[in-house]
Amino acid sequence: MKPKNKHNHNDLGLDTKTVAEGYRALNKDGTFNVRKQNVSFLEQLNIFHSLVSMSWLKFLTVLALGYFTINIVFASLYLIIGMEHLTGIHGTTPLDQFTEAFFFSAQTITTLGYGQVAPLNLAANMVAATESLLGLLLFALATGLMYGRFSKPYATIKYSTHAVIAPYQEINGFMFRVVNPKNNQLLEVEVSVTLSLKRDTTDLRDFHLLELERTKVVFFPTMWTIVHPITPSSPLYGLSASEVLIKDAEFIVMIKAFDESFSQTVYSRSSYKAQEIKWGEKFTYLTKRYGTGVSIDISSIDDTHTADLN
Amino acid sequence: MKPKNKHNHNDLGLDTKTVAEGYRALNKDGTFNVRKQNVSFLEQLNIFHSLVSMSWLKFLTVLALGYFTINIVFASLYLIIGMEHLTGIHGTTPLDQFTEAFFFSAQTITTLGYGQVAPLNLAANMVAATESLLGLLLFALATGLMYGRFSKPYATIKYSTHAVIAPYQEINGFMFRVVNPKNNQLLEVEVSVTLSLKRDTTDLRDFHLLELERTKVVFFPTMWTIVHPITPSSPLYGLSASEVLIKDAEFIVMIKAFDESFSQTVYSRSSYKAQEIKWGEKFTYLTKRYGTGVSIDISSIDDTHTADLN
Amino acid sequence: MKPKNKHNHNDLGLDTKTVAEGYRALNKDGTFNVRKQNVSFLEQLNIFHSLVSMSWLKFLTVLALGYFTINIVFASLYLIIGMEHLTGIHGTTPLDQFTEAFFFSAQTITTLGYGQVAPLNLAANMVAATESLLGLLLFALATGLMYGRFSKPYATIKYSTHAVIAPYQEINGFMFRVVNPKNNQLLEVEVSVTLSLKRDTTDLRDFHLLELERTKVVFFPTMWTIVHPITPSSPLYGLSASEVLIKDAEFIVMIKAFDESFSQTVYSRSSYKAQEIKWGEKFTYLTKRYGTGVSIDISSIDDTHTADLN
Amino acid sequence: MKPKNKHNHNDLGLDTKTVAEGYRALNKDGTFNVRKQNVSFLEQLNIFHSLVSMSWLKFLTVLALGYFTINIVFASLYLIIGMEHLTGIHGTTPLDQFTEAFFFSAQTITTLGYGQVAPLNLAANMVAATESLLGLLLFALATGLMYGRFSKPYATIKYSTHAVIAPYQEINGFMFRVVNPKNNQLLEVEVSVTLSLKRDTTDLRDFHLLELERTKVVFFPTMWTIVHPITPSSPLYGLSASEVLIKDAEFIVMIKAFDESFSQTVYSRSSYKAQEIKWGEKFTYLTKRYGTGVSIDISSIDDTHTADLN
Repeated sequence: MKPKNKHNHNDLGLDTKTVAEGYRALNKDGTFNVRKQNVSFLEQLNIFHSLVSMSWLKFLTVLALGYFTINIVFASLYLIIGMEHLTGIHGTTPLDQFTEAFFFSAQTITTLGYGQVAPLNLAANMVAATESLLGLLLFALATGLMYGRFSKPYATIKYSTHAVIAPYQEINGFMFRVVNPKNNQLLEVEVSVTLSLKRDTTDLRDFHLLELERTKVVFFPTMWTIVHPITPSSPLYGLSASEVLIKDAEFIVMIKAFDESFSQTVYSRSSYKAQEIKWGEKFTYLTKRYGTGVSIDISSIDDTHTADLN
Repeated sequence: MKPKNKHNHNDLGLDTKTVAEGYRALNKDGTFNVRKQNVSFLEQLNIFHSLVSMSWLKFLTVLALGYFTINIVFASLYLIIGMEHLTGIHGTTPLDQFTEAFFFSAQTITTLGYGQVAPLNLAANMVAATESLLGLLLFALATGLMYGRFSKPYATIKYSTHAVIAPYQEINGFMFRVVNPKNNQLLEVEVSVTLSLKRDTTDLRDFHLLELERTKVVFFPTMWTIVHPITPSSPLYGLSASEVLIKDAEFIVMIKAFDESFSQTVYSRSSYKAQEIKWGEKFTYLTKRYGTGVSIDISSIDDTHTADLN
Repeated sequence: MKPKNKHNHNDLGLDTKTVAEGYRALNKDGTFNVRKQNVSFLEQLNIFHSLVSMSWLKFLTVLALGYFTINIVFASLYLIIGMEHLTGIHGTTPLDQFTEAFFFSAQTITTLGYGQVAPLNLAANMVAATESLLGLLLFALATGLMYGRFSKPYATIKYSTHAVIAPYQEINGFMFRVVNPKNNQLLEVEVSVTLSLKRDTTDLRDFHLLELERTKVVFFPTMWTIVHPITPSSPLYGLSASEVLIKDAEFIVMIKAFDESFSQTVYSRSSYKAQEIKWGEKFTYLTKRYGTGVSIDISSIDDTHTADLN
Repeated sequence: MKPKNKHNHNDLGLDTKTVAEGYRALNKDGTFNVRKQNVSFLEQLNIFHSLVSMSWLKFLTVLALGYFTINIVFASLYLIIGMEHLTGIHGTTPLDQFTEAFFFSAQTITTLGYGQVAPLNLAANMVAATESLLGLLLFALATGLMYGRFSKPYATIKYSTHAVIAPYQEINGFMFRVVNPKNNQLLEVEVSVTLSLKRDTTDLRDFHLLELERTKVVFFPTMWTIVHPITPSSPLYGLSASEVLIKDAEFIVMIKAFDESFSQTVYSRSSYKAQEIKWGEKFTYLTKRYGTGVSIDISSIDDTHTADLN
């Protein structure tokens, strides 16, 4: 009645009944390999989150297009009201007048207000007063988004491309390396690795939380090699490389840390599939003495050399 | 002397002495069914919280009304000072002059400042200088509110409309489903379910923290069925549907999670009353294979089918 | 060698060697009764914190004075440069010119820019360009401060004025009540109460962490009576009211909660001195049925009635 | 297979193979003595973090230079378009015209818009409309940075310059003092001290988590003396001052606290090397009675007096 601590139980919250070859629960970048069907667009929508998460190029394009569109709309309004109700309009053709209205709108929404062109009658004044308020509110929004974009913490952890099965003390171990290339300090870093294996005969997957040499470090100044020693109690014990492939193994990695620069807890996820493991390779030691401290060559995170397995 | 771990003890912080039929501690939307009396308006007030929590329609209406009111006030001030102390005023009737003062005020408070109308004497200048400062401060406030509205995390968890009593392994279980329709990733999701039952003879309620199949999942990519197995130690053990109704049962659900998009801890609450339980129904399994991952039909969260109870 | 769990040990971080009558470690409002000497002003200074914590009246006064002062400074600069280098100046007396320069400065720093007055030569243009940049930065600051002021979470917990020693089950208990008058939801509320007692003969104080009926509640919709049962293991056991006064007792209360409105952890502190305890009084029960829920009269938090002690 | 709890194991995440004399893992200010090699500039870059962490002088210089540069760029654009397409230009020499264009740009990017100078043709209008939008966005950015700078929590803890080995109860203890000079309240302060010792014969370092008299205090109103009692189980037991020097000892201190002013968790780190320990000195007691509370002379944090070791 208390299956909670059993190893083959799934406390990850992932589905256990999907077995076809090549199933991957987590993509390399840590996103879930899941599609949600029949969620209404509005329900799924999170405007702030989308605008904060999109690339800078996309974000600035959205802003520029929005600015352009709003000015088109307001220029049309001023044109409908009649250009004779704005001072300082010189254009006589509709296109010239529209252009002048467009730039008057731009000067109004940014609260620039050169004053060369200015509203004269009630309608034009009402539109301009509304536009300047709208401008301020949109700008307030942009400010919030800018801050949201910059202050959004994100774990900057980089994973070694491959994991290895290498000799570890008297036995062997499953190992991969992580590195923090940014200047952000990550503190109290916790890691968990769960192994998902397909059962031989049924259509179910088992999930095994792997025992690690160390599940938490206080500091993470540079690089950390995470080691699962393959003891007799390990689900990997006695398995060959080909058996691990047949069982369609997936090592699901979750890292949690406190990012001191953002004063926030951040998470990082990734996964290694069976074919992303190098057997009989060992990660090369990279730390060198430098002054009174040490120096580490971060670009060599993937460097391995052959090592005879125990 | 240490009744803390006893099951019939209320560590929820809810009242234990209210028994009348139909009592509900938590509303479906997670708010508390409690009215606070004799709290002074000021004590209860939390302006920021109110402005951040109200609907966008209400929020924008408040802003528009505020803008209108402030301009009315300042237009009146300029009129009192005398319109001859502003340049560029053409109106001769009081109404025309008030309109011009109103739009001059709008141009000043938004710091638009076309300059067509401008203050001339000391009094008008003082009012205009004060208004533009006030405008900036109000705008600073609006910026903060906009950001507050957008960055406020909220658990987007959706609950199945009904709970079910369904067969579970060799016995039966109380079950309900939750889903995260948004794109926000929820991590380290914890759930607790407390059953509140009316005592037969006295005017007291007992609270029982229910044992769950799983109280925590690391990931919550799509859907989670929360199960309370009805073992002999369960307060539901041996109760019939009508007995659960007579005892006026309320299942109080509390979910806690880390919202990765907002980097914040979020809470979600709901409750199921006895009449919101379907006996002998089972939730339909919804996950399908999709490419190398899975696909889940979120709109079918309430789908159940008949299942014979053990 | 491991005195950590001993009762008479001070894990509060408060001083243990201060015995004089009337010593109070915490003031009623939760601030520490401590003066820091010889800290340089700059070291102690925390401008943001000060501006965010001061009253609104003080804050707005600081803003208004700052605005006034900066305009005085810039008006002087324009005067030094020479008023002939600004267009639209009509004043001939120094005072008139200064007034015009003052309001031109106000129009520039708020980026209002009517344009009636405008800089002509290099020096005036440089000062105006600098002033408008300064204005934007100061305004950016004000925006941040506004947001900081509004979004600063604070525990809104209100304590009963007095604590009581009242009958509790078969024995007696030390009790006080707390209430959350605001609409903010406080969740997972934890409380600890430490009793500080003067030793009879030496110049030391002992600190006793008191056992409570309940140290944590999940919800805190209205009111919570916190109870320390006076069992034989309690440091209060067998003490009379006068003995508690002689030992100069101080009950130090610390409450920690998650404020759902601000998505932040908040703390609240207070203390009860021996003379703030009513012996043989019991808090009056305040919950009433209201519709399908309950209603509580918050203003009666201090209501007690006589009750014979066990 | 479970070396996690062994004392000589490094759960700090620091390198264990660096032995040369004078190695220091943490600098006095808490930064890591580590250089990352071969990280691409972009990968290491964190613009927001850099702008938020740099000194105010540097930050304001960056802002001023950016403002100047952008105006140079836009002035050049206006010049290229042709000064005849701006109204109100009086200069005839190229330098005069560039200066006028420069200040027009400044008036546009700050949305000041006096209007004395204003764009006439399509090209000039387009540049001005773009510049004012850019100005708003840059200003939005500056607002976010200002808020980021001010609201960034940082542990303000100050460490005593030296640690001491002083008599403690019946034995001796390793001690240092920390003080919070700011007005920020730090709550639930946790400390850990790890001793790093060079092995005599091999090229490895051992890390020992030291047992402390107290690892956590609830309040931290003024000063805290952190004590490691040198019991027989301490790695310092029986070592002389010269042996500690030979073993190149480093005491790595990590403090974690909740900063109530910022409602955030903050961390502070420092380290003491063997040569920063005073043997046979004791910290002077600094608390004095002041009114109903106490007073502490913070500037005397380093005061010690001779004390015979046990």
